[in-house]
Amino acid sequence: MPDPHRVVIIGGGFGGLRCAQALARAPVAVTVIDRRNFHLFQPLLYQVATGALSPANIAAPLRSVLKRQRNARVLLGEAVAIDARVRAVRLRDGADVPYDTLVVATGSRHHYFGHQEWEAFAPGLKTIEDATAMRRRIFLAFEHAERTGDVAERAALLTFVVVGGGPTGVELAGALAEIARHTMAHEFRAIDPAAARIILVEAGDRVLAPYDPILSGKAVQALTRIGVTVRTSTQVIAVRDDGVDVTSAGATETIPARTVLWGAGVMASPLGRIVAESIAAETDRSGRVMVEPDCSVAGHPEIFIVGDLANFSHDGGKPLPGVAQVAMQQGDHVARLIRSRLDGRQLPPFRYRDLGNMATIGKHLAVAEMGSLRLSGWLAWLAWLFIHVLKLVRFESRVLVLVQWAWYYVSWNRSARLITGDEGSKADSGGKIADSA
Amino acid sequence: MPDPHRVVIIGGGFGGLRCAQALARAPVAVTVIDRRNFHLFQPLLYQVATGALSPANIAAPLRSVLKRQRNARVLLGEAVAIDARVRAVRLRDGADVPYDTLVVATGSRHHYFGHQEWEAFAPGLKTIEDATAMRRRIFLAFEHAERTGDVAERAALLTFVVVGGGPTGVELAGALAEIARHTMAHEFRAIDPAAARIILVEAGDRVLAPYDPILSGKAVQALTRIGVTVRTSTQVIAVRDDGVDVTSAGATETIPARTVLWGAGVMASPLGRIVAESIAAETDRSGRVMVEPDCSVAGHPEIFIVGDLANFSHDGGKPLPGVAQVAMQQGDHVARLIRSRLDGRQLPPFRYRDLGNMATIGKHLAVAEMGSLRLSGWLAWLAWLFIHVLKLVRFESRVLVLVQWAWYYVSWNRSARLITGDEGSKADSGGKIADSA
Repeated sequence: MPDPHRVVIIGGGFGGLRCAQALARAPVAVTVIDRRNFHLFQPLLYQVATGALSPANIAAPLRSVLKRQRNARVLLGEAVAIDARVRAVRLRDGADVPYDTLVVATGSRHHYFGHQEWEAFAPGLKTIEDATAMRRRIFLAFEHAERTGDVAERAALLTFVVVGGGPTGVELAGALAEIARHTMAHEFRAIDPAAARIILVEAGDRVLAPYDPILSGKAVQALTRIGVTVRTSTQVIAVRDDGVDVTSAGATETIPARTVLWGAGVMASPLGRIVAESIAAETDRSGRVMVEPDCSVAGHPEIFIVGDLANFSHDGGKPLPGVAQVAMQQGDHVARLIRSRLDGRQLPPFRYRDLGNMATIGKHLAVAEMGSLRLSGWLAWLAWLFIHVLKLVRFESRVLVLVQWAWYYVSWNRSARLITGDEGSKADSGGKIADSA
Repeated sequence: MPDPHRVVIIGGGFGGLRCAQALARAPVAVTVIDRRNFHLFQPLLYQVATGALSPANIAAPLRSVLKRQRNARVLLGEAVAIDARVRAVRLRDGADVPYDTLVVATGSRHHYFGHQEWEAFAPGLKTIEDATAMRRRIFLAFEHAERTGDVAERAALLTFVVVGGGPTGVELAGALAEIARHTMAHEFRAIDPAAARIILVEAGDRVLAPYDPILSGKAVQALTRIGVTVRTSTQVIAVRDDGVDVTSAGATETIPARTVLWGAGVMASPLGRIVAESIAAETDRSGRVMVEPDCSVAGHPEIFIVGDLANFSHDGGKPLPGVAQVAMQQGDHVARLIRSRLDGRQLPPFRYRDLGNMATIGKHLAVAEMGSLRLSGWLAWLAWLFIHVLKLVRFESRVLVLVQWAWYYVSWNRSARLITGDEGSKADSGGKIADSA
């Protein structure tokens, strides 16, 4: 028997993991390489950042997910180079992992449009560490507000600016409003947390731009109702330790705010550039690799890019959005294509089937579009709840998430709002709260 | 109406929080100062370190616990000095918090008997960050073993040395054995995790020294049965990156091991020394403050020390052990004493009522002593389970912990075994696994 066809998948996110799982019965040897030992359910990351869920609730150990799949192995490691000539992935520790087919699915990072220095003041939300750092900032702001005697400082500490009106920004702003008005109620003695201002800043003329304009309007209504100030057509031009400068209709203004959260730009993960350079592939402005209609890279039928890292623009020109659905369907498609090739069969090009979009804003408040259906309010919220619980990878997570959501539903309490950080452990005997800020 | 009597409690652990809660109906103004925004259920910290529970499952936000107690407020801050003359606590940010009665309950840290340099190689377990750092080490060791081709290195990576045969050491060693033999089964392709060696090193002649010798024997039996090598009368004389040197019966030996976990010494938290110096109080070798029979400090009836930070040795000379029961009973006693004094009543001195000890080793394996009752095996395990679930502060935690334990019971899966760390987020584009080790 010849050695099985070697499929190496870089990245255990939605696209990579789906591809690996769809190859379970194929006569191939699958290797999944990831820098982390877990698959992360990124759409719920904002719930970790706002203290509603624990990191482990939205993560599943990759080894555990793939333990029964005998043709798959997991390598914890970071891919740093691709040698397309000898067909091998170089890991940071120097090891080479040879492949016959390579699937690159390393996703995206948040991006500051050339202002990387803003990151220190306006953290983004892509990893568990991003989420716990954001959580620390949010809850420390209330703590510091309780402690300060300075009125202006207190106001800045109780002002939260969320940059970017996409789903992440909308969901973060909604959660912040609920934290201020409900979770924190009765918990402070010097401040009224409900006085906190939550400002959602969006450069475009409406939030949730990819959605139907009616739903954008519904989202603004819902956000406004729970206390979020929505400012569209407003551009952030500077982010500092003590606030943001925004410009709107030609006028520039400073918003004093100690907490700025970034939900705006995304950019392809650095491996995209490495892949593109090593095989002279084309990339777009965001660093995404241009792919063929079958998700492979031009001139390299054995290399596929799926998910956020790929620019797939064959259905009318606009690239497919960076959402889990696209990644999973592409991962599926590539797995089917690999099987077809081994059988000597042909497969039609990849076609994205849009199953819809949904974003939640708060209790009973969400917007959703599925096909020609537009939902908002209660019904959209129930649909969101149902689908997100169903989609969690493991049964145990579903139970844990449901218990916590049910508890939140009745009590508004966010049990996972721990202010933690490595500073605390390293400087235990002298750990200062200022350090953790 | 005069201003209410001001009670300042430093530390929101078992002793401090219990004292605050026991003052709920007293005509006092309670201030709880803590460096963290949560109460931590330390007895289950080893379950976070071994990936069975998430940090938030064993933590309760202090504000949330005390939100309905109108006479209590919470300050997030670090006490750095006590001025007993003007009766005020100085916080790191410069603020002074005046008190009429002061309760110091800042607990203990792990301690390396003058070898603080060992901490880098043998982390201890007192905080959430300690636990997630330990978790990272444990699960990274298996990952690195899967990757290495070097036989000796692989053996060292699969050798886990737990230093200290107290409850923490016994529980850690038992959990490690279950991880290697059950949780990790079928998850690796190059190594057999069940081949991992877990070595529990204890300097004394038996594990669980405060327990009845019969139970120490039962614990060793249980540990041995699930694959732990127990080495009593064995002293650690050096800890390095690549192993430990131990001496036993005059012979010295090196155990190559990449993972060494510290469950041995504890030492009073640094505030103990600060308090002692500021009021010229006596401390013992571990830095604990000697207290009077009513838990106050000699010459300062308005200053109380409770819990691990106190050396209470009035019932026969031996200081009371550093366990949650002692801290809670002392916290209760001090609250009652404060109320009595305000009423002009007397109170008999503090007496510790020993409710028993228990330690769990693995599934169906535990030891417990309550009064003259000695339990081991199934029954002790059920008792342990029941009591620990009951003692968790919040109802929601109980449900979450029970769900996860039930799931572990049937699947052996440890869902919270995430390898995370700040390194990963800061160096995202170049995050190396070596960094997180």
